Amino acid sequence: MDSDRIRQQFAFCLEMDKEKNIGRQTYLADGARKENDAEHAWHMAVMTLILSEYANEEIDVLRTISMLLLHDVVEIDAGDTYAYDEEGKKSQRQRELAAAERLYGLLPPDQAEKMRALWDEFEACETPEAKFARTMDNIQPAMLNAAAGGKAWSEKGVHLNQILERNKNTANGSEILWNYSRENFIEPNVKSGQIKEN
Amino acid sequence: MDSDRIRQQFAFCLEMDKEKNIGRQTYLADGARKENDAEHAWHMAVMTLILSEYANEEIDVLRTISMLLLHDVVEIDAGDTYAYDEEGKKSQRQRELAAAERLYGLLPPDQAEKMRALWDEFEACETPEAKFARTMDNIQPAMLNAAAGGKAWSEKGVHLNQILERNKNTANGSEILWNYSRENFIEPNVKSGQIKEN
Repeated sequence: MDSDRIRQQFAFCLEMDKEKNIGRQTYLADGARKENDAEHAWHMAVMTLILSEYANEEIDVLRTISMLLLHDVVEIDAGDTYAYDEEGKKSQRQRELAAAERLYGLLPPDQAEKMRALWDEFEACETPEAKFARTMDNIQPAMLNAAAGGKAWSEKGVHLNQILERNKNTANGSEILWNYSRENFIEPNVKSGQIKEN
Repeated sequence: MDSDRIRQQFAFCLEMDKEKNIGRQTYLADGARKENDAEHAWHMAVMTLILSEYANEEIDVLRTISMLLLHDVVEIDAGDTYAYDEEGKKSQRQRELAAAERLYGLLPPDQAEKMRALWDEFEACETPEAKFARTMDNIQPAMLNAAAGGKAWSEKGVHLNQILERNKNTANGSEILWNYSRENFIEPNVKSGQIKEN
C-alpha cells in the first residue's frame, strides 16, 4: 500500500469537515436556523436519489451525486456567495478557482484531476448530469424557503425577477421539477407577499 | 405525470430536512460543536468517493453511498442511540423499525420498497457494500474524534475494549482502513490517555 496516497486522501477527507461551518442563506424547514454547505449537499444528494426520474435526459446518478457532494467545497476558502449578492459575485470566480487549486490539490494527482473535472463540469453546466445538479441546487432551497414561510425571501427583500433570473437554467435539468417548484414554492410566496412582485 | 407520486416524493424530501436536527456524539474536527446526522451522512458519502479503492471486495459505489445517505433517517423518529449507551440500545431496534415504516412509507410504494431494502441491507451488514458502509460509519467519527484531541472519548470515559467491540466488523469492509484508523486515530489516543486502557 502507498502510505503517502492514503495520507493525502485522509488529509482531504478531514479538510472537508470545514464544509459544516460554511453557512448558507437558506433556513431549515422549521425556520429555526440556517443550513450549512454540508447539510445542503447531503439534502441535494438524497433528492437526486428520489427525483432523478424527472431529469429531461437520462442521467448517471452516481456522477450527479458526486458532483453535488463536492461542488461547494471551494467555499471552504472562498466563502458562500449569496445568490443575490451582486458585489460578491464579481470576485466569486477568482476566489473559487484559487480554492479549487488548493483543496483538490490535497488529493493524490489522479483523484485531484477527477474531482476537479467534476467541479468544472458542474460549473460549465453543459452535460445532463450538471444540468440536473443545477436544478437540484435551485429547487432544494426553494423547497425549504417555502416550508419556512418564505422568510429567507422576505428578509432579503427578494424580487420575483431575481428568482426567475437565478432559475433561468433550472428547467434545462428538469422541466417537471422547475414547474413543480414554480407552482408550489415560488408562486404561493408571490401571492402572500414574501416575494416582491416586479 | 402522476401528481400524487411527485407530491409523495417531495413530502419525503422535505421530511428528510429533520435529519439536520438529529445530534450525534462526535465533535467536528475543531471541537467547537458536535455534528448532526445529515453532516455525518454527507461526510461518509464524500469519504466513500475518495476511499472506495480500499474495500476488501469490489463495491458498487452508488449503492454504498445511497445506503449511507439514508441509513440514519430512522433517527428522525427514533433518535440517535450513542454507540456506548447500553440501555438505549435495548429498545433501539424496535424504535427504528417503527420509524422505518413511517418514514419510507412517505414515498411511492416502489421507492419505499427500494429505500427500505437498502436500509435492511445496511442493518444486515452482509454484502460488500453494507460492510464498507459500516466501515465508513466507524472510521469517520474516529477520524473526527482524533482530530478534536480525543475529547468525545475522554468526556464519556470510553475504554479501548468498548471501541474494539464497536469496531469488531470494521475490518470486514476494509482491512486497510481499519488498520489506518487503529494506528492513526485510536492508538495515539490510548497513549495520550483520552481512551482508557482496559
